Amino acid sequence: MSSDNGNNQYAADLSSIKEARVRISSVIHKTPVLSSETLNAMAGRKLFFKCECFQKGEAFKFRGASNAVLSLDKQQAAKGVVTHSSGNHAAALALAAKLRGIPAYIVIPSNAPKCKVENVKRYGGQVIWSEPTMVSRQSTAAKVLQETGAVLIHPYNDARIISGQGTISLELLEQFPEIDTIIVPISGGGLISGVALAAKSINASIRVIAAEPVGANDATLSKASGRIITLPRTDTVADGLRASLGDLTWPIVRDLVDAVITVEDSEIIEAMRHCYEILKVAVEPSGAIGLAAVLSDSFRKNPSWNDCRNIGIVISGGNVDLDVLWQALGKY
Amino acid sequence: MSSDNGNNQYAADLSSIKEARVRISSVIHKTPVLSSETLNAMAGRKLFFKCECFQKGEAFKFRGASNAVLSLDKQQAAKGVVTHSSGNHAAALALAAKLRGIPAYIVIPSNAPKCKVENVKRYGGQVIWSEPTMVSRQSTAAKVLQETGAVLIHPYNDARIISGQGTISLELLEQFPEIDTIIVPISGGGLISGVALAAKSINASIRVIAAEPVGANDATLSKASGRIITLPRTDTVADGLRASLGDLTWPIVRDLVDAVITVEDSEIIEAMRHCYEILKVAVEPSGAIGLAAVLSDSFRKNPSWNDCRNIGIVISGGNVDLDVLWQALGKY
Repeated sequence: MSSDNGNNQYAADLSSIKEARVRISSVIHKTPVLSSETLNAMAGRKLFFKCECFQKGEAFKFRGASNAVLSLDKQQAAKGVVTHSSGNHAAALALAAKLRGIPAYIVIPSNAPKCKVENVKRYGGQVIWSEPTMVSRQSTAAKVLQETGAVLIHPYNDARIISGQGTISLELLEQFPEIDTIIVPISGGGLISGVALAAKSINASIRVIAAEPVGANDATLSKASGRIITLPRTDTVADGLRASLGDLTWPIVRDLVDAVITVEDSEIIEAMRHCYEILKVAVEPSGAIGLAAVLSDSFRKNPSWNDCRNIGIVISGGNVDLDVLWQALGKY
Repeated sequence: MSSDNGNNQYAADLSSIKEARVRISSVIHKTPVLSSETLNAMAGRKLFFKCECFQKGEAFKFRGASNAVLSLDKQQAAKGVVTHSSGNHAAALALAAKLRGIPAYIVIPSNAPKCKVENVKRYGGQVIWSEPTMVSRQSTAAKVLQETGAVLIHPYNDARIISGQGTISLELLEQFPEIDTIIVPISGGGLISGVALAAKSINASIRVIAAEPVGANDATLSKASGRIITLPRTDTVADGLRASLGDLTWPIVRDLVDAVITVEDSEIIEAMRHCYEILKVAVEPSGAIGLAAVLSDSFRKNPSWNDCRNIGIVISGGNVDLDVLWQALGKY
């Protein structure tokens, strides 16, 4: 990757993110930014919701996936792409591959949510089942790689993915240059790495804050201990936020993310309800966590954040079964 | 109202709609237009969803209401505004009045949905209860008018309202000039009157098609018989589409609306589910009917519409209780 400032310490930088934007501009949606006086009043700040739920493939994941697929040379591309993911990355990669006319092999654990599997199939992805363990997922993917010669596209620990997700910051800060803070869900760190690299390069004073569930607080623990912490188990309704940081995303999260806010599942569900009833958008729990963070006591009552006045919040995802939504709402 | 073409036959025209746009531009949201390859494939055309669900007050009604409120001179405005409506117009009028700092008296029938009443209160409207009959609503409103000197703002049979709603066409056709057809829900006709006047003035070849429920098909019957037909009763899940045409909206609907498509309640609910699961937006049944129409057999299999390739669909509303949504989905 080239660099604007001669600084090659991270997997991506403003140049690679700008290159990604050019590469994917004809296939992605420039997503709208919504606002609500009601939610502004609740938060006591101005909130700018970057609606990646309206992205193709229904989540921000399509930015990184299409950047990765369009980065391949013809010969590589012809053999297709592979990933092991039960989530929105799988659907996004299938769609990106379909648009380029190449195969996508998607290794999916047998316990994946139905709607996510259906999205992969709808976008023409070839589903290859594995056992619901990381070992089985990885070994199945390795077997597919060997048999097909396809290129592995990791959901987040990949420079092309990080650069693609970073295009969100370019768009958002053009749409609302007054934004002084960006709040982003964190899981494996691909999204926040790209967002933080681009935002801090454009304006170093912008705060970038991560949000994660209490039941999957590995980013909080990693930041506190100065190394990647992997949780033995996670417990959260936000099934998209259970991954651990990777060796490419961790240095960026360590250096450029100002803080991690943890929220309870009940706060996530309440935020999801607000998204639906006030903002009028359908998001999955993982995608609503940014709103949950900005409404949480730990954010509102912390004087460090008093001067965060204009907050960009990435809301995303995606693949919400109405039945699953209802169950989640009934539980809290 | 002034006229572009010396034609004063209707309550509004392109000039009054352009004036409305200038008047309300600082208070309304310019709403985004969403699209979905999945829904395009289902419809066999390109669909452009004009998302009035993201309008302030959560429905297109705020355009007309704010145009009406901002049209009042200072002396009139000081006495406030009144309407009898249980729907989104009530909330929109309360919000428009609040933004101008004047009182809004909202006569609401005792059987109105809870969330709609709460929205009126949230926006500072003064709720005045009536019996759930049109006679009681009108007599209660008349009493309020007499006591307060406030100005009555009818939900649709009002030139200011029609002009305000017409600003949707100005925006939409600037956003996507290739649109050749616009599909709009019809109830009292305020929305479609404004939309049709503006669209046909900009490009006479644009088709404007109304959508209404089979159980509230008064527009279909009115067009067929050449006069306003009022139904003795209506039966539909789309509670926002039960009104009858007015003497100001009827001539516009009669002359400028190319056709009315009726759809079953089950089709409306299915469209609402598509809005949620595919388009990721929360709409009430009344607001999803345009999508139901374009997916209906009566539209798809009618050769008259074969050359409707780029279809603008106004989706709106608004005030969706999650509980009500769930009940509706369970019923079909």
